[in-house]
Amino acid sequence: MASQEDVFKKLIAHCKEYGFVFPSSEIYDGLGAVYDYGQNGVELKNNIKKYWWDSMVLLNENVVGIDAAIFMHPTTWKASGHVDAFNDPLIDNKDSKKRYRADVLIEDLLAKYDDKMSKEVEKAAKRFGASFDEAVFRSTNERVLENQAKRDEIHTRFVKALNDSDLAELKAIIEDYEVVCPISGTRNWTDVRQFNLMFSTEMGSTAEGAMKIYLRPETAQGIFVNFLNVQKTGRMKIPFGIAQIGKAFRNEIVARQFIFRMREFEQMEMQFFVRPGEEMKWFEHWKAFRLKWHKALGLGDQKYRFHDHDKLAHYANAATDIEFEMPFGFKEVEGIHSRTDFDLSSHEKFSGKNIKYFDPEINQSYVPYVIETSIGVDRTFLSIMAASYKEETLEGGDSRVVLTLPPVLAPVKACVMPLVKKDGLPEIAREIINDLKFDFKCAYDEKDSIGKRYRRQDAVGTPFCITVDHQTPEDKSVTIRHRDSMLQERVAIADLHKIIGDAVNMKNLFKKILA
Amino acid sequence: MASQEDVFKKLIAHCKEYGFVFPSSEIYDGLGAVYDYGQNGVELKNNIKKYWWDSMVLLNENVVGIDAAIFMHPTTWKASGHVDAFNDPLIDNKDSKKRYRADVLIEDLLAKYDDKMSKEVEKAAKRFGASFDEAVFRSTNERVLENQAKRDEIHTRFVKALNDSDLAELKAIIEDYEVVCPISGTRNWTDVRQFNLMFSTEMGSTAEGAMKIYLRPETAQGIFVNFLNVQKTGRMKIPFGIAQIGKAFRNEIVARQFIFRMREFEQMEMQFFVRPGEEMKWFEHWKAFRLKWHKALGLGDQKYRFHDHDKLAHYANAATDIEFEMPFGFKEVEGIHSRTDFDLSSHEKFSGKNIKYFDPEINQSYVPYVIETSIGVDRTFLSIMAASYKEETLEGGDSRVVLTLPPVLAPVKACVMPLVKKDGLPEIAREIINDLKFDFKCAYDEKDSIGKRYRRQDAVGTPFCITVDHQTPEDKSVTIRHRDSMLQERVAIADLHKIIGDAVNMKNLFKKILA
Repeated sequence: MASQEDVFKKLIAHCKEYGFVFPSSEIYDGLGAVYDYGQNGVELKNNIKKYWWDSMVLLNENVVGIDAAIFMHPTTWKASGHVDAFNDPLIDNKDSKKRYRADVLIEDLLAKYDDKMSKEVEKAAKRFGASFDEAVFRSTNERVLENQAKRDEIHTRFVKALNDSDLAELKAIIEDYEVVCPISGTRNWTDVRQFNLMFSTEMGSTAEGAMKIYLRPETAQGIFVNFLNVQKTGRMKIPFGIAQIGKAFRNEIVARQFIFRMREFEQMEMQFFVRPGEEMKWFEHWKAFRLKWHKALGLGDQKYRFHDHDKLAHYANAATDIEFEMPFGFKEVEGIHSRTDFDLSSHEKFSGKNIKYFDPEINQSYVPYVIETSIGVDRTFLSIMAASYKEETLEGGDSRVVLTLPPVLAPVKACVMPLVKKDGLPEIAREIINDLKFDFKCAYDEKDSIGKRYRRQDAVGTPFCITVDHQTPEDKSVTIRHRDSMLQERVAIADLHKIIGDAVNMKNLFKKILA
Repeated sequence: MASQEDVFKKLIAHCKEYGFVFPSSEIYDGLGAVYDYGQNGVELKNNIKKYWWDSMVLLNENVVGIDAAIFMHPTTWKASGHVDAFNDPLIDNKDSKKRYRADVLIEDLLAKYDDKMSKEVEKAAKRFGASFDEAVFRSTNERVLENQAKRDEIHTRFVKALNDSDLAELKAIIEDYEVVCPISGTRNWTDVRQFNLMFSTEMGSTAEGAMKIYLRPETAQGIFVNFLNVQKTGRMKIPFGIAQIGKAFRNEIVARQFIFRMREFEQMEMQFFVRPGEEMKWFEHWKAFRLKWHKALGLGDQKYRFHDHDKLAHYANAATDIEFEMPFGFKEVEGIHSRTDFDLSSHEKFSGKNIKYFDPEINQSYVPYVIETSIGVDRTFLSIMAASYKEETLEGGDSRVVLTLPPVLAPVKACVMPLVKKDGLPEIAREIINDLKFDFKCAYDEKDSIGKRYRRQDAVGTPFCITVDHQTPEDKSVTIRHRDSMLQERVAIADLHKIIGDAVNMKNLFKKILA
């Protein structure tokens, strides 16, 4: 059986080969951790965005959208804390000239100690066989105890250094425990410096100079600074939410895992404004709603799990992730956070504007509390591709690669194929497309055998293949072939619209969410 | 009658008051030439984007989409010419410390001469009355001739300076013709310097340094660098097109006219790849197609005109603009350009990759020629808002502000209103919304008189208001009120879906385009 790593590599290759995801600027050998969506990828991505958007603003009467700019006034990022605290601690090895995240070096060090202990346990288990008790062994074995003590020592210092933002102590840990550069093998380190993850640029040009601005590292702040505008012009009553889809940018030092962690990425976020004290009720509400949204896609309920945060960010009083089983393990796809009144209060302080809401029901003014649901477009894309990519062995020994994408999200809904390139069959196929194309993205294919054409459509996840054959001119019927079951049935041309329409209707998913 | 300038001011105020467009980061007093779309603006904008996208990829079988990243490899912008030539010539006045575009100062100077001559003509026309012949006057009047000579002299030097990128000569013109700073009134100028309009930032962090990259100033290059990927993985045959919607950024010195010229803006572009020598046929094809797309919106055919370029960009062999009558005159909304093989050939040269297409029909390899259609999302938004904003005096002397938006683009399709807040009418209104909301963005309003509620929906362009009254529980009927005619009719609840659906169906527009 193929390893998970192999499957992931195959998926990345498939994404490129079938026009889903290309490395950015590939003819110039790419740009680190930036990707472009191809002709099939963009359709899948747009369908995901539409599913999220409509589920938010159509199903929830008290949720409206906005589209704030990527450029924001720089004070926004002072207020949000990003200018001061959105940093990675970096360290260079002077011999290899390689740069590392100091915290990642220490995490790797801790992992080494864990690894050592596990190996001791493993060895002992082999020696003692069935009588082996891990708990007893761990509490008595000298080498494990020594290791454990050292590991705890490092861990304690590390957590304290992070909490204190003590860069000198981070370096001291690296030196005290003799961490070496994986390239040069030496311990010749520079000091640790903070590196801000925001991309900055200069706006305008006046004789006095330009203004330093940032590319937003998250979309949430575009909602917070517009809270008053939307609430007042939309006559919104609390509780209500503001939804937004848009790009964000982070200058990640260690960007990896294909489109999972990119420097330019897209978020779908909703900030839901509630009365202080009612945030836990709404936190639970949105947790449930969002999980149903994911599960309605039908990728498999067991592939999702909640992961509650033990350690909360400074602005949060509750937080959970919805994790999805990627080829590289369960990973965060969406975060649901109870952000308290941190952001609005901070903007109130920095802007000097009154950002309070007068609640007529309780006759009080307050800064609303916020529940945030924040999901990555690219991560959702990756989760759907990963769950849909299948290599199947068919009866007779043939094999196929098929993307069992949810039909509502599939880039192409139907491919119409004339059995042969003559006898008027191509013309009938065109007529069918002309009738369907206003409502469904259709493809036309007349090249190679029908079997090969089916394989091509399987590889991009097209739910229906429609074949025009010699019976078609006689009785206005075609065969329709279903992607997942590969079964074919004979149907009237007049019924195609309804068959496809029923299968790709987003309403079916909405009904599952609301059920 | 209100001046066009007043109308424009009112439109901007209306955009803010009704949640269409807010100044970016307004609580921090905004950010120059950047705007956010509010709860109604985002829906209108998304509908515009969907209309464009579907008209491209659904109606044209040989057009597919992509979504390339904003970040691209920096060599892209060497190849496209933007690093070397995407500049504005700037000059500072040393007394006022104000910065100007040198070319704009000279254009203003030329306009002054034109103005002077026009005034002479006007004066003479008044003096001579009916016998006045402008042509004779212009060719004989000394003052006009003198003016004309000077104007021609400046114009000749200006055009040559621009063609030669001769910055010293631009300064010399400004000095020789005694251009003064509008603020300080002095002629104390610095030298002219080139200022590149691209925003730059630094990507990555290695010990050797970061990489300088740019925010794309246009989306077209994202298509060109992906030409091979899309053509090969999509098995595309020439002629075919690649469509894309996305953000672009330009550090404009003189950004103005609300969302017409912004520093962050959105484009909808299609690059259509053709056989060399066939570009004029396709140029005409896309001119016609694109004009039909605009006119299908029903804003008034007389509001559009083509404006062919006299002076072509270095990469083009034909170019036209589709101009729309804005409150500040006819302005470019879309450009259609025959870009020859300039871009692909340049990328071939800079990347060292073979970017040729083998054409099996003529058994030849070539670098394809390109027809580009490039339309601004924000400008289209502004054109639609400007054409739809109306102040009407009603029978009886009342007045209303109404947005006669094309129903298919309207942010909210229907507002459902119980006549009174009791007798079970709100519950029926909710039931109606629950039935409609999967397909149409609906609003609910129970506050104030029906008349006031109508006005609120008029102001955001909602095509239908549905009133639930005391007859409704008896016979399952409601009144439906039409935005533009203000006429009401009694209809069955069961018919609402079809009435609204027919009115907001994008197919109607597609059929007009294809007719």
